[in-house]
Amino acid sequence: MLVGGRHFFDDADPSAVGHKSLAVNLSDLASMGATPRWVTLSLALPAADEAWVASFMRGFLGLARDHDVDLIGGDTTRGPLNICVQIMGEVPAGAALRRDCARLGDDVWVSGTLGDAALAVAHRRGDFDLRAQDLAHALVRLDRPQPRVALGRALRGVAHAAIDVSDGLVADLGHICERSVVAATIEWDTLPKTAVALRYDAHPLVRQAVLAGGDDYELCFTAPPQRAGEVLEAASAAATGITRIGRIVEGTGVSVLDAAGRRLPLKRAGYDHFG
Amino acid sequence: MLVGGRHFFDDADPSAVGHKSLAVNLSDLASMGATPRWVTLSLALPAADEAWVASFMRGFLGLARDHDVDLIGGDTTRGPLNICVQIMGEVPAGAALRRDCARLGDDVWVSGTLGDAALAVAHRRGDFDLRAQDLAHALVRLDRPQPRVALGRALRGVAHAAIDVSDGLVADLGHICERSVVAATIEWDTLPKTAVALRYDAHPLVRQAVLAGGDDYELCFTAPPQRAGEVLEAASAAATGITRIGRIVEGTGVSVLDAAGRRLPLKRAGYDHFG
Repeated sequence: MLVGGRHFFDDADPSAVGHKSLAVNLSDLASMGATPRWVTLSLALPAADEAWVASFMRGFLGLARDHDVDLIGGDTTRGPLNICVQIMGEVPAGAALRRDCARLGDDVWVSGTLGDAALAVAHRRGDFDLRAQDLAHALVRLDRPQPRVALGRALRGVAHAAIDVSDGLVADLGHICERSVVAATIEWDTLPKTAVALRYDAHPLVRQAVLAGGDDYELCFTAPPQRAGEVLEAASAAATGITRIGRIVEGTGVSVLDAAGRRLPLKRAGYDHFG
Repeated sequence: MLVGGRHFFDDADPSAVGHKSLAVNLSDLASMGATPRWVTLSLALPAADEAWVASFMRGFLGLARDHDVDLIGGDTTRGPLNICVQIMGEVPAGAALRRDCARLGDDVWVSGTLGDAALAVAHRRGDFDLRAQDLAHALVRLDRPQPRVALGRALRGVAHAAIDVSDGLVADLGHICERSVVAATIEWDTLPKTAVALRYDAHPLVRQAVLAGGDDYELCFTAPPQRAGEVLEAASAAATGITRIGRIVEGTGVSVLDAAGRRLPLKRAGYDHFG
């Protein structure tokens, strides 16, 4: 459920809102290794704005086509802008990737790169100043995330635990740790940052964006080191870059270490919807 | 998708809102003769009001238990009050009741009684003055509708077309007519009205409530006259009262006739969400 003015800016490009409202749901299925099949869409709109709806649907249905997902139902009504998407997919019985299956000694991996979406949000809020070209790149990441459906499916039977990075890497990996009753250490220097994040590396917001910025919709997953070859093959088959960023260890929580092995202080663990 | 202040009063009993938000979805499945199985629930709330949520869930889960429906997912977020329910059910392939299957000569039937819910709304809005006892009865109909799931299922293979009366009898029967490319005539005197509606019979709002008031969540369906016996048996098996109210004829639209066979004028055909 996405609320106008909260999950997206009220004046956002409706086509991007349509894309993203489906993308975040596809990402949930990706994190379970599921094949998306059907989706329902309910819209509350402040007014019957046909141009807005047409643009929204272009974004929504374009991504649905890309993933061969059928829109099978839903609702429209008048009300404060609200988008409720419900997706259904299929995965062989017992084969779904889960949050509670990380094991001691597992490698921790993440797909793609982290932080751009959060930097775009910070720029829009006026907290950060990105150059025009960097902004354009970061906005694509924020507005048109590409759910890692093919990667999730390829990791079935290979990865132990998986989650999509929607609340931020530390928070989401923390969910895996909590559910699997383990801890994780990740190394700051190994984290995949784009040229944008690297260019502003000295700024304190960058660390925040990479570690705690949500909205990247990459997959974070764990797998035993002896299966690293299969993990890399799965990523290659899915045409998705992945990076090994840390390890599952005993304990609780997620620690981020610098090059000297010192723990980096973390400001905020995740997103509280009622915070 | 139900919006606070639009589909229910903001100060409504949250337990009743919970009941009704599931009931209207169960009613949709009932109108297709489906067996409800799974439901998802997404809530946008202006604040984390635990008492409200607890009461809402009592109403929602109580009805879910009555119908053996499992709550399998959903979402919560902050935002203007919005309740989005998505229900899934099962029906044998090809056996679903539909809107487009009414045939010339079919009887038109409706379950239960019509108009109480709309009179309760009119009372709450100050447009109508119900006696305390009548109000109590009408409010139960408005706030705690009982979806006709058992009746819908019993009508599989017996009824031709079916719909649930959510927008008002004339509007919903009109949907059947439009989709089936037929017309319907119904007789005002045969329409099942409760003691409440009968008591205020002279008031112009009563006719409006019975013919065009939504929120009754009764089933309106058509079946060939030679199967009237089976229809009555199905209703009996489902422990649900039904009334034969008219006939499917050639033409378009729905006509309501008085005892002398004169067409009653209709004020309004249905509910326009953006009106």
